[in-house]
Amino acid sequence: MDTATLPDQFALSLADIEQAHDRIRRYIVRTPLLESAALNDLVGGRVLVKPECLQNAGAFKFRGACNRLLQLTPAQRAAGVVAFSSGNHALAVSTVARSLHIPATIIMPSDAPRAKIDGSRANGATVILYDRQKDDREAIGAEIAERTGAVTVPPYDDPYIMAGQGTVGIEIVEQCIEHGVHPDAVIAACSGGGLVAGVAIAVKALSPNTDVYAGEPAGFDELARSLASGRPESNVPGAKSICDALQVVKPGKLTFPVNQALLAGSLVVNDDDVRRAMKAAYQHLRLVVEPGGAVPLAALLAGKLDVRGKAVALVLSGGNVDTDVYIEALKA
Amino acid sequence: MDTATLPDQFALSLADIEQAHDRIRRYIVRTPLLESAALNDLVGGRVLVKPECLQNAGAFKFRGACNRLLQLTPAQRAAGVVAFSSGNHALAVSTVARSLHIPATIIMPSDAPRAKIDGSRANGATVILYDRQKDDREAIGAEIAERTGAVTVPPYDDPYIMAGQGTVGIEIVEQCIEHGVHPDAVIAACSGGGLVAGVAIAVKALSPNTDVYAGEPAGFDELARSLASGRPESNVPGAKSICDALQVVKPGKLTFPVNQALLAGSLVVNDDDVRRAMKAAYQHLRLVVEPGGAVPLAALLAGKLDVRGKAVALVLSGGNVDTDVYIEALKA
Repeated sequence: MDTATLPDQFALSLADIEQAHDRIRRYIVRTPLLESAALNDLVGGRVLVKPECLQNAGAFKFRGACNRLLQLTPAQRAAGVVAFSSGNHALAVSTVARSLHIPATIIMPSDAPRAKIDGSRANGATVILYDRQKDDREAIGAEIAERTGAVTVPPYDDPYIMAGQGTVGIEIVEQCIEHGVHPDAVIAACSGGGLVAGVAIAVKALSPNTDVYAGEPAGFDELARSLASGRPESNVPGAKSICDALQVVKPGKLTFPVNQALLAGSLVVNDDDVRRAMKAAYQHLRLVVEPGGAVPLAALLAGKLDVRGKAVALVLSGGNVDTDVYIEALKA
Repeated sequence: MDTATLPDQFALSLADIEQAHDRIRRYIVRTPLLESAALNDLVGGRVLVKPECLQNAGAFKFRGACNRLLQLTPAQRAAGVVAFSSGNHALAVSTVARSLHIPATIIMPSDAPRAKIDGSRANGATVILYDRQKDDREAIGAEIAERTGAVTVPPYDDPYIMAGQGTVGIEIVEQCIEHGVHPDAVIAACSGGGLVAGVAIAVKALSPNTDVYAGEPAGFDELARSLASGRPESNVPGAKSICDALQVVKPGKLTFPVNQALLAGSLVVNDDDVRRAMKAAYQHLRLVVEPGGAVPLAALLAGKLDVRGKAVALVLSGGNVDTDVYIEALKA
């Protein structure tokens, strides 16, 4: 597959991601591509780590939020933004909004990590908490947008958000070239699917024979099951996972067609796999990675993908974790 | 002061550091310059963090070891290298030696962190442990070098090592320019003084009106006292510090003249300051920083330097820490 054969019905193209990259470049951290001899030894291949936990606001979400908010008109900026988020999108939107002097209202689940709720409030955002099991966060957001005139900044089903997240994929390909290595595979965590969809569009366009995989936590493996059945499947209500950032009900409307067309699969891991990966990132990479952000490394260390003799790039997508959860992982 | 006025009796010049940079560039991580709005708020200025804990082998020491070992002749490579180190230099030398297929013997204190001893052994080095209070590590190293013909790779008192460490300073100045910020000050931890001396030569040559400070732990503040008295002062035997990486007896022979001529001062912190800084690096930067590596941030957060309205670049120099020590800091 080359660029020309990418289905043109997608919500965005490589060109959109490249434009996003030009737009946000001076605001983001070009996170390095890190490698650890110890991790390489563990999997028998080369592991190239893209640490988006070092991104501003501690997650890749800053890229999409930045791309979206930079395109607001002066009138829209004055009216403000509203976002619903399990946490990292909240931190990203509130961080960008603060620096652009835009009023922000963030709708977050009441069981989100304190680090994410407190951080969003510290950024000056108005935080509204909802019950993850009972309330409809999209409806709450729509009501506020209707009432205040604020622009809704969705977490993934938005071409500008997806394009911003896709800049991670451009950088991975660029940095693999700088390192003189061809990535046989790229793995990125999937919740609503904006990150992995954006990354897939960029990577498949720039490096067509690189396989792109999603990573998901057990219980929230809607993408793996949707890819298997060929249609969007929902998660069973009431599932639990340590991965607070990766808990959606069903695949995104804009993201699923992309992921269905471009992904080589979705790798599913359990909480123990995730804790071991968090500890490995601490020990071998000196990175603080939150549960959801550790899923791609968890998949590798749990043997969900055979990378012996191959090179694989992993997005470690965020690092906003409550200390008790983190210490539990280090003791694992 | 500009380049031309740097005393020419130093063991190395900016040109040596630039040559080192060209030599090691393809082997090192060009660590990013990170910034956190929360840290900026805490100190009332801009804090630009150079996370050398993300360097290969987890510390800046990789730069100097790489610069030194790349210059060995084939005969020297065959005879091997011997290094004495409190840990990070051991990891760095053994990592470089492994990749260049050079036999390495490392002499380490018996109370070094397990992470550092085990890591050096995992790299294939022969590790010899000594008693930090009783034995003379330099004498042990000299005896081995004499007997085996191995080349001694000292941790700081060597122009090539100092030049390698100084590449951190070149990158800080380059990256501050990329960020559009002029650094009013740079702080780097000091043990033997190779890092801060190399950084000072680079920074004072490239950005003459930037003040360069050392950071030291209480009890091992030989540089602060030496700068005050005007001559090399020794630490009192038996002192204790959480900063395992920063425990020397007296300033280096080659490093002290540089530090005496170029530094604006040395900032001294205690163990509680260090633990708070390790936690702040975890929380606000998602970086795992070891005690010695956290000293510059500890100095800022403890108010040892007033940076209100100013920009200061900090080298967080390493991230190799035992988990019990790390968890204790996160609980602080």
